[in-house]
Amino acid sequence: MRLFRNDYSEGAAPQILEALARTNHEQCVGYTEGDPHCERARELIRAACGRDDVDVEFCIGGTSANIVGVTGMLRDWEGVICTKDAHINVHETGAIAACGRTVLATQDADGFLSPEAAELMYMNQTMTGRHMTLPKMIYITNATEFGGVWDRTRFDAICDWAHGRELKVYVDGARMAAALTSAGNDLTLQHLAARADAFYLGGTKNGMLFGEAMVIADPELKKSFPYLVKERGGLMAKGRLLGVQFEAAFEQPADGGEALYWRLARGANTCALQLRDGLNALGFESYLPANTNQQFFVVEPAVAERFAAAVGCETFAQLPDGRRVIRFVTSWATKTEDVDEFLAFAATVA
Amino acid sequence: MRLFRNDYSEGAAPQILEALARTNHEQCVGYTEGDPHCERARELIRAACGRDDVDVEFCIGGTSANIVGVTGMLRDWEGVICTKDAHINVHETGAIAACGRTVLATQDADGFLSPEAAELMYMNQTMTGRHMTLPKMIYITNATEFGGVWDRTRFDAICDWAHGRELKVYVDGARMAAALTSAGNDLTLQHLAARADAFYLGGTKNGMLFGEAMVIADPELKKSFPYLVKERGGLMAKGRLLGVQFEAAFEQPADGGEALYWRLARGANTCALQLRDGLNALGFESYLPANTNQQFFVVEPAVAERFAAAVGCETFAQLPDGRRVIRFVTSWATKTEDVDEFLAFAATVA
Amino acid sequence: MRLFRNDYSEGAAPQILEALARTNHEQCVGYTEGDPHCERARELIRAACGRDDVDVEFCIGGTSANIVGVTGMLRDWEGVICTKDAHINVHETGAIAACGRTVLATQDADGFLSPEAAELMYMNQTMTGRHMTLPKMIYITNATEFGGVWDRTRFDAICDWAHGRELKVYVDGARMAAALTSAGNDLTLQHLAARADAFYLGGTKNGMLFGEAMVIADPELKKSFPYLVKERGGLMAKGRLLGVQFEAAFEQPADGGEALYWRLARGANTCALQLRDGLNALGFESYLPANTNQQFFVVEPAVAERFAAAVGCETFAQLPDGRRVIRFVTSWATKTEDVDEFLAFAATVA
Amino acid sequence: MRLFRNDYSEGAAPQILEALARTNHEQCVGYTEGDPHCERARELIRAACGRDDVDVEFCIGGTSANIVGVTGMLRDWEGVICTKDAHINVHETGAIAACGRTVLATQDADGFLSPEAAELMYMNQTMTGRHMTLPKMIYITNATEFGGVWDRTRFDAICDWAHGRELKVYVDGARMAAALTSAGNDLTLQHLAARADAFYLGGTKNGMLFGEAMVIADPELKKSFPYLVKERGGLMAKGRLLGVQFEAAFEQPADGGEALYWRLARGANTCALQLRDGLNALGFESYLPANTNQQFFVVEPAVAERFAAAVGCETFAQLPDGRRVIRFVTSWATKTEDVDEFLAFAATVA
Repeated sequence: MRLFRNDYSEGAAPQILEALARTNHEQCVGYTEGDPHCERARELIRAACGRDDVDVEFCIGGTSANIVGVTGMLRDWEGVICTKDAHINVHETGAIAACGRTVLATQDADGFLSPEAAELMYMNQTMTGRHMTLPKMIYITNATEFGGVWDRTRFDAICDWAHGRELKVYVDGARMAAALTSAGNDLTLQHLAARADAFYLGGTKNGMLFGEAMVIADPELKKSFPYLVKERGGLMAKGRLLGVQFEAAFEQPADGGEALYWRLARGANTCALQLRDGLNALGFESYLPANTNQQFFVVEPAVAERFAAAVGCETFAQLPDGRRVIRFVTSWATKTEDVDEFLAFAATVA
Repeated sequence: MRLFRNDYSEGAAPQILEALARTNHEQCVGYTEGDPHCERARELIRAACGRDDVDVEFCIGGTSANIVGVTGMLRDWEGVICTKDAHINVHETGAIAACGRTVLATQDADGFLSPEAAELMYMNQTMTGRHMTLPKMIYITNATEFGGVWDRTRFDAICDWAHGRELKVYVDGARMAAALTSAGNDLTLQHLAARADAFYLGGTKNGMLFGEAMVIADPELKKSFPYLVKERGGLMAKGRLLGVQFEAAFEQPADGGEALYWRLARGANTCALQLRDGLNALGFESYLPANTNQQFFVVEPAVAERFAAAVGCETFAQLPDGRRVIRFVTSWATKTEDVDEFLAFAATVA
Repeated sequence: MRLFRNDYSEGAAPQILEALARTNHEQCVGYTEGDPHCERARELIRAACGRDDVDVEFCIGGTSANIVGVTGMLRDWEGVICTKDAHINVHETGAIAACGRTVLATQDADGFLSPEAAELMYMNQTMTGRHMTLPKMIYITNATEFGGVWDRTRFDAICDWAHGRELKVYVDGARMAAALTSAGNDLTLQHLAARADAFYLGGTKNGMLFGEAMVIADPELKKSFPYLVKERGGLMAKGRLLGVQFEAAFEQPADGGEALYWRLARGANTCALQLRDGLNALGFESYLPANTNQQFFVVEPAVAERFAAAVGCETFAQLPDGRRVIRFVTSWATKTEDVDEFLAFAATVA
Repeated sequence: MRLFRNDYSEGAAPQILEALARTNHEQCVGYTEGDPHCERARELIRAACGRDDVDVEFCIGGTSANIVGVTGMLRDWEGVICTKDAHINVHETGAIAACGRTVLATQDADGFLSPEAAELMYMNQTMTGRHMTLPKMIYITNATEFGGVWDRTRFDAICDWAHGRELKVYVDGARMAAALTSAGNDLTLQHLAARADAFYLGGTKNGMLFGEAMVIADPELKKSFPYLVKERGGLMAKGRLLGVQFEAAFEQPADGGEALYWRLARGANTCALQLRDGLNALGFESYLPANTNQQFFVVEPAVAERFAAAVGCETFAQLPDGRRVIRFVTSWATKTEDVDEFLAFAATVA
């Protein structure tokens, strides 16, 4: 049975791999510093964002992107507000602290940073002035750690709050494609690009071998990024690999259809909703509403283990009542037949 | 009216100042590296701790001590568990993160780190192995941020938990003298020294101009401390100043009485309990039980402001019901007449 | 005309690319944490090194490898001795300092760290004890920054010196394959693995898309590496990509021939010597003896510019007499016809 | 015999100690945050500098001052150019690297950073753009590590160079008083304050118990300093101690004479020249011209050891010919009789 463990279990979407093979023998300047593929990818991403004035830079992965994004936008004594489940707070081995900056985690529990919790943190952190880390940035994730999607109203509210307090807005977009193509989404890439100070468009979890594209409006980060990405070990010698992949993902298809980047995510989302609706129909309870390629369910431990053994789904949390929150993830490589096969199995578990 | 703002409002206890003046013209080797006063102070502190095998080193202040203590006991990717109100988590401008280590704050709200909360943090932080900061140390404070005192049972329980998980125990002793001389205290310096991997005996808040003495049992910190204290800017050229002060504080008086270090703290505590009992008698509600030189009360905002204007007491927290937690602090310099005068004033506020 | 700018101008050797395509649809666990390709690559590399007791870990690039290797082997106040031209001293944007460690650069000018210069640095750096960065590691590069190769005698001498002073030996092997397959080389991988505390086998500059394999004997780095590589942003989600490439490079061919890793480097070296001998025959002067895929020549500025325009060779240094040191680099992708074509052009410049 | 080991062997000048005793019982707000002594000291120092628009902040010692000064003026990937003997390069245990910034040391050997060497470093460090640490600041010391004094022409030349390249100028003034009161000095505090972006006026080595006063014109450092000094552990709780000492040092005497700060340094310099001239007359060779309280001589090893045993002078360097460079230091506490006594002894060594 096909695994639903995560969206980086496979290699790359065939079109991406084909682009890498096609350009393999070209001789390019290194380090993303002006080769035609990086330049073309930058142009395509700027166009997709509807802004000419942003810098587009490339990272090898999400943690590397977050390190450069956060440390490039903060001075040594400044901090970034995020939710307690934020990737930078939990899953990156203290990478932000390793760069000397402080993560300020709120008690928001649903994956969305709320203006109320952010304001509370801000008030607490500025109570005694320079004796405390100064909040200067917020970190949010779209889709969230729990597969949720920021709608425009919610996104505008947190941007309004942050900018009103002179904090910068950074969006971790490891699964941005899944979010922006999800059912009911009303947040456009253009709107996001108009309001965020920086964000990245994830490639690793959307059909590339690796790679994230950082879109930078913030003047400080524009200046910092080129140096920081090298200093922090995140600059790839064969930078063209990033350009080639993002070029392939964002190039307009000849048939006038949607760019590959969005099509891959739509495919993953479709399978995810098929899985969700199927499991719901079988009586399995969703943990939080989610329209993207991560689906969370609340199950008994024994069920969690059977699913884990069968399709590699992971336990995300232990609830006070003993039940577990488990996660299923689909990807560009998931087929509806894979979901069908799993649901047939799930029916035997229900 | 004398202020009750904090215990570092004045200079030094007269006996300390006198010792500095008396030794002023001696020519000593610098940097605490073997001058007779530092050596004598080390000897006295080792004796007070009942251990010959600990290193005794000196710091210029609490944040500097915590920086060296925590970073010297942790590798880059390791973290320190403490309560959310811990000084290193709130009041040191991200100093631990600035050294690349991560603070892991529990939800304990009374100033005491509980084994339960520590265990929960430990379990969460080790769930996905190297993707998370590894807890390797606990940080506790005696007296706590809220003036509480660790009794022996509670202290042993957290030490047992920590050592059982192979975490080191570090005690911030900015107000250790106040704790160990407080009414009802059953924790001895010897017991503390027998179980903690490192701790410091605070001087700044107990009648010295400045200075903290770090007692180090941990082999790693023994090796790290001398280099780190210099590298982090905390090594004093005229190191003898630290030696002279701690020597004066710990030297046994000719009259067979208690060493100055303890006498100064007892004086501050006595005034603090006089103030507490007086305010309680006037109907003011204590926030948490506290027998040391910090006393917290829950009052209406208007009352908080009158007290602040009169004796400089600070607001520590805003309660959900709108009332405030305010803090009064006594020191070696406080006299019972000062408390009497304040209580007379407080009677007009009540 | 084919460029001789560097050895990361192209994508990957066809056999590497083919292996990536072949395994693309497999579902693997992430992060190099136990997928069959990483495990097999580890096994092959251990066998090639002749040691069962080393850890083999993977990095995304050389700077990332150096960051993890150096910071994992040093405490905060310790330093690494290297030559002034060392990559970590010059070309990595202060990456070692960014991790809080100090680079201690000697005046050695030929790319080889000498025991004499290292000893001088050691003596100077330990003159006033903890007031100075403590040297605890040496960093050398094989092949050197100038294309030189460490022979066994020279390598043993610096290892003897370092271990005699209790410094660890780290070898940057970005171009290790070129060194170990070069004409006249007498240093075996087994000998190197027996003496170095850690080193890496470069993939990026030897026909892979990216990737370096770190071989770790040092117990501290064994413990540090897994956490540090994640904390510093160098852990790849699709870790299998590293495994697949190194597996393809080190798997023994069915025909009993040499593994791909060595064959690719031999090809690059052959073209480099063809180019060197050809240029020497035309009267161009080599800067330093070099048998690997980097060849340096001393030329007049006008000549440097003509060569740069034609084949992208870079200026490495400006000599006091106004002449320039320029570098030609061959790779797995260079063909003898490419060199022929260039030499024909060079004849018109001579 | 009185030692000539260094200028921090004794406590404080009597006038300083007296001021501390006089103000000891005042209750002051902590952390240099507005107590009357810090405020008055700031006012006096601004007046001495002839600038109303600079910030004046206090540090506990030289390394702490340099940490805050350098890291506050540089972004993570930027570096500071200094001479190879600079204190930050040699004697501070890698403190700058510990804060993530890079020290770029020139080959200047006389303690003065030359525009030529600085330009060479700048050119080398900007050759490959973001692959290298970007120089953004120079660090110079007045008096230099070898007791030399920057004259106005030389100072203007390095400032012109630095500002022309958009580098900031930082002056370590651990012995600024000795420099500005030395025979032949033509650099005024006002001129220095007009051109440097930041510098500090040393107290530790000029008769205070401890303390340095940082004068800040640079807008970035004005913003950074308050947070960094706390984050790096350099903020003193009883901040008034710094204010009291600098107030006493800079307050205009009632008799219209020179402020104590300058008088103390003049005394030390006078004794130093007496010692220098006396030793020269006895045939001992000065190492470099020096008019300040540090005097260096080139002697045979046996002589070095006799002097060391007698008056604690330290060996600073070993010359290629086997002779040693030794250092004598005078302070505010040195009396001419002390020098007489030593010279009588030296006559027996000569």
